[in-house]
Amino acid sequence: MEVVNNLLNYKGLKIVQDTDSFKFSLDSVLLANFVKLNKESNKVIDLCTGNIPIPLILSKKKNMEIYGVEIQESIFNLAKKTIKINNIDNIKLINDDIKNLGKYFETDTFDIVTCNPPFFKYSESSNVSKNSSKSLARHEIETDLFQICRVSRKILKNNGYLYIVQRTERLIDVLECMRKSNIEPKILQFVYPKVNKDSNIVLIAGSKNGKSELRLLKSLIVHNKNGEYKKEIIKIFGERS
Amino acid sequence: MEVVNNLLNYKGLKIVQDTDSFKFSLDSVLLANFVKLNKESNKVIDLCTGNIPIPLILSKKKNMEIYGVEIQESIFNLAKKTIKINNIDNIKLINDDIKNLGKYFETDTFDIVTCNPPFFKYSESSNVSKNSSKSLARHEIETDLFQICRVSRKILKNNGYLYIVQRTERLIDVLECMRKSNIEPKILQFVYPKVNKDSNIVLIAGSKNGKSELRLLKSLIVHNKNGEYKKEIIKIFGERS
Repeated sequence: MEVVNNLLNYKGLKIVQDTDSFKFSLDSVLLANFVKLNKESNKVIDLCTGNIPIPLILSKKKNMEIYGVEIQESIFNLAKKTIKINNIDNIKLINDDIKNLGKYFETDTFDIVTCNPPFFKYSESSNVSKNSSKSLARHEIETDLFQICRVSRKILKNNGYLYIVQRTERLIDVLECMRKSNIEPKILQFVYPKVNKDSNIVLIAGSKNGKSELRLLKSLIVHNKNGEYKKEIIKIFGERS
Repeated sequence: MEVVNNLLNYKGLKIVQDTDSFKFSLDSVLLANFVKLNKESNKVIDLCTGNIPIPLILSKKKNMEIYGVEIQESIFNLAKKTIKINNIDNIKLINDDIKNLGKYFETDTFDIVTCNPPFFKYSESSNVSKNSSKSLARHEIETDLFQICRVSRKILKNNGYLYIVQRTERLIDVLECMRKSNIEPKILQFVYPKVNKDSNIVLIAGSKNGKSELRLLKSLIVHNKNGEYKKEIIKIFGERS
């Protein structure tokens, strides 16, 4: 069923979603918030963009040229509707596989690449959801971390940044894929669901051809003991327009 | 000048040090504490062992066969004295380069390898201390992370663990070297000097031929606002015998 939801409370943004399909999650909001924008950030692309939560949030942070790439046509069509109902004119959508981005862009084009990629490794034995749309968004069926990093290296400018969110237990995979693609991991931030739980999510920023020197940001804790969002999280997405 | 110091307050252990040379540090104590011992932990080796703080602490935790390897003869001689004054009989010392360990041990011999390696990359332009003994302990002159990981892979049993401490900004180097040596990073713990400072030190455990799945332990904060050791740190090294 197609519904229109608020993108949390983020500046009045709305998002068109199919309740039977994959819905945007807090991970995307945290990633968009993790992205550092400065005056040289003028061209951004979001890979595996889904319901475009990341482009939507970034469009409210700075007036930039923003692209979103989505392989699934049904989700791409919902994203077009989302752009329309939000009256946004600086997000352009591409309905294609990220491996074909060379058709659309020169190398060394983007200041920033963002990606909330499929989190789970795919294998024949994976217990994969039968809903194909959801499976593609959650499992590395059509793309994987290596491809995302290789594509990012091509389209990023020198010293441009790739921002990725992943499950913490797969952090080493992200770091390895980045380094093998000459994208040097520069900033890590761990996210914890609650104060006494293990970190489940990690935010990673890497710089194309960057110097090796890692910074670790203060960790984020999402919920308080009662299961409510903590103030620092509400501050990220709760600003009403 | 040669002096005898307490190894903090750790179970009355004493350590013989040359005040002109490199002295043991909190990093080694934290690494020894980070090591997980179980009933299968019977053979342990500490690479770049220096004044043997790690073997000393481990010797008090479990009765095991413990080796320490130190390339510098002057430090090796101090370490022999340290063993003598502590009346310890389960630590054996080797005065050699770690690349020669094949002369002493079969492959697949050790349950655990520990290493507090030189922290700094070496280059001709490095601003390296003129004291050669200190330089070798601090800079990657005689050994580097790749060699440590390659040597560890050889001497570790399958699923044996390598424990390393490093500066946080070089974490990615450690993770890359481990993976390239089929030592899968499994556990990370970040150490912060104070609550509002960046993490400066990280503890890393990797398993030979281990499955890819990372765990992040709760971070350690060393000092309180007044610069005193926090209770959790005192608990690690402060147990008087």
